[in-house]
Amino acid sequence: MNDENCIFCKIVKGELPSFKLYEDDSVVSFLTIAPINEGHALVVPKSHYQDFFDTPESELQKIISVGQKVSSAIKKVTTCPGINIVQNNGKSAGQEIMHYHLHIIPRFEGDGFEQWHGKQKTPEEIKVVAEKIKSAL
Amino acid sequence: MNDENCIFCKIVKGELPSFKLYEDDSVVSFLTIAPINEGHALVVPKSHYQDFFDTPESELQKIISVGQKVSSAIKKVTTCPGINIVQNNGKSAGQEIMHYHLHIIPRFEGDGFEQWHGKQKTPEEIKVVAEKIKSAL
Repeated sequence: MNDENCIFCKIVKGELPSFKLYEDDSVVSFLTIAPINEGHALVVPKSHYQDFFDTPESELQKIISVGQKVSSAIKKVTTCPGINIVQNNGKSAGQEIMHYHLHIIPRFEGDGFEQWHGKQKTPEEIKVVAEKIKSAL
Repeated sequence: MNDENCIFCKIVKGELPSFKLYEDDSVVSFLTIAPINEGHALVVPKSHYQDFFDTPESELQKIISVGQKVSSAIKKVTTCPGINIVQNNGKSAGQEIMHYHLHIIPRFEGDGFEQWHGKQKTPEEIKVVAEKIKSAL
């Protein structure tokens, strides 16, 4: 259930140091050492799952519950008015460590991090895509 | 359980049109009409909860399960190599509709959307923050 070359597996096993916020049988949360803003934390399953697709549903549910508790504590301590919950899958989506992790990112007014913006499509364009996805569900 | 001025509550009730991908008793998923990339979808609780902090744990668990199923279908149809799961809380974090929603954003190599990057801190700096958050948990 662990990958011997994985940094997060090493943190889980205590072979690498970390600043843990929370730990139970299956989930651990710790601060990243290169935060986007102060209080930037990760929530990670102890078992080595690569990404959202690879992680069992029951583990995802535990992770989101822990994420909510940890986020509330981060909000209280940092008094941040906003928080982004971000989880990247695949190198093209910015995933750097190939072990599932949920980012909790405190946000402050004018902190300079820009959200992405989409481009308006026609209802006809959207409908075609929706039908394909529905068929694949 | 609904807010009469909320766009997502209107979509849930069918008072506004949408391209739904999935629907059950408590959760709905539909495509956004201004996608970051083709296949950009949202997963939304039917009840009006403002954000991550306001949404009951049991609802968050349903949402993440639906999110996983819908993400798999989107990945299959769009053949995207990456996906970002993003959920914004508060205006300073880019939340525009004040009804909890999980973004599923397909990503492609070189699509031009940049991830944010953090700044390395010293272990001493991180430790101070970790202790405060642990005390608030």
